[in-house]
Amino acid sequence: LSTLTPEQLDRLRVVLVSPRNPLNIGAAARAMSNFGFSRLRVVNPYEVAFREARSAVGAAALLRSAEEFGGVADAVADATLVVGTTALGHRELQHPLRKLEYGARLIRRRLASSPVALLFGSEKYGLANRDLSHCHWLIRIPTLEAHGSMNLGQAVAVSLYELVRDSRAATRKPEPVKPATEGEVERLTAMLLEALKASGYTNPRTVASTEEKTRRLVRRLHLPERDIEIWLGIFRQVLWKLGGGAP
Amino acid sequence: LSTLTPEQLDRLRVVLVSPRNPLNIGAAARAMSNFGFSRLRVVNPYEVAFREARSAVGAAALLRSAEEFGGVADAVADATLVVGTTALGHRELQHPLRKLEYGARLIRRRLASSPVALLFGSEKYGLANRDLSHCHWLIRIPTLEAHGSMNLGQAVAVSLYELVRDSRAATRKPEPVKPATEGEVERLTAMLLEALKASGYTNPRTVASTEEKTRRLVRRLHLPERDIEIWLGIFRQVLWKLGGGAP
Repeated sequence: LSTLTPEQLDRLRVVLVSPRNPLNIGAAARAMSNFGFSRLRVVNPYEVAFREARSAVGAAALLRSAEEFGGVADAVADATLVVGTTALGHRELQHPLRKLEYGARLIRRRLASSPVALLFGSEKYGLANRDLSHCHWLIRIPTLEAHGSMNLGQAVAVSLYELVRDSRAATRKPEPVKPATEGEVERLTAMLLEALKASGYTNPRTVASTEEKTRRLVRRLHLPERDIEIWLGIFRQVLWKLGGGAP
Repeated sequence: LSTLTPEQLDRLRVVLVSPRNPLNIGAAARAMSNFGFSRLRVVNPYEVAFREARSAVGAAALLRSAEEFGGVADAVADATLVVGTTALGHRELQHPLRKLEYGARLIRRRLASSPVALLFGSEKYGLANRDLSHCHWLIRIPTLEAHGSMNLGQAVAVSLYELVRDSRAATRKPEPVKPATEGEVERLTAMLLEALKASGYTNPRTVASTEEKTRRLVRRLHLPERDIEIWLGIFRQVLWKLGGGAP
């Protein structure tokens, strides 16, 4: 799945700062679980929300083992790299702001050797300046300016996806479907031609050109081997019904 | 922001099949809005959920303009490419299954010229075989097998992110912070050395080697130009307090 090893996945600390909504805490935990991360930390959560999220039916072990901290400093103390997330157009540029794609690359590199903390702010206000001062730099998810603020659970999902996704997969072709052999395609072509003849589609004066056109038509279908028998069966049945051949 | 033009963004139809939860419909709409897409279609939704989602406070215009269909065939009729999404390990492999990264590339290519429909199934059951039969192929988001099922809103967010993200951004370096000049760094080094002397840190017998070590120490900080004056100010103050210089 991931370009990260289990040890590397385990080195990421996902830190939610002051989350207010139990559904978002749950969604963040689910995204972590989906992508193979396990270390959730919550700073100064709205207590009711955190309790509710942890006791929710179906809450992952991950959520139950989430650690709670009173401040960002403690929550990131074991990390050698602290990265904040921000919506576009977000106040201060005291920090270098990196595109998610580029920042994820730097985070992956650091995870190879030591812990990294990735911070997400509250649903309403994002990360406060005080929280940001603990960060080495910030990443932003490439959303539209006008609709910059992402749902917290979705922001976590997109960020973690970018961390684990396989950049080589975009160009690596999938296993090709086994194509039909030319002999199989020609058998089908012949049967189709019989059906065209039997149905009266073929004009006797242009039989030769129809045959060529039909041959090209069938080849443009790029049929997989497994579909040949199905098509043969279909035309065999049609032919039989047209009285042009035996079923 | 996006590698897709406004026309291309407008050619994608995001089709939610049988969604049950108004929060998920809202989250899907929000993710679309975040990434610049606008055409939401809903097939056979749980009516109460759809009505609730559309009338929610703050629901985007996008959600209110969502089109409702009674079946998948109608919802994808204007598309030339229909792509389903699935969780890993999902039943039938009647369809070619492509990694999200690779599938997104094919979708982007098709969006250059004609409409593409991207289907998401219900929260509980995903896409039914009947829905899948309308698809040319499927993509799967690279989640862990054991935790394969993604939250609907998050699955939409991750898929759309992959469609719009800039693959070149991963290797393109951000604007570098302007580094301090060697003259500035040396000014700071000199002041630090004065402070070390005034504080008694420097052993008179090893002054020369201390100076060299300190010079290297300061250079390893790779200070940006804008921080030089701050550090000079700090050491100037320390020196003054130590009685070693004028404030």
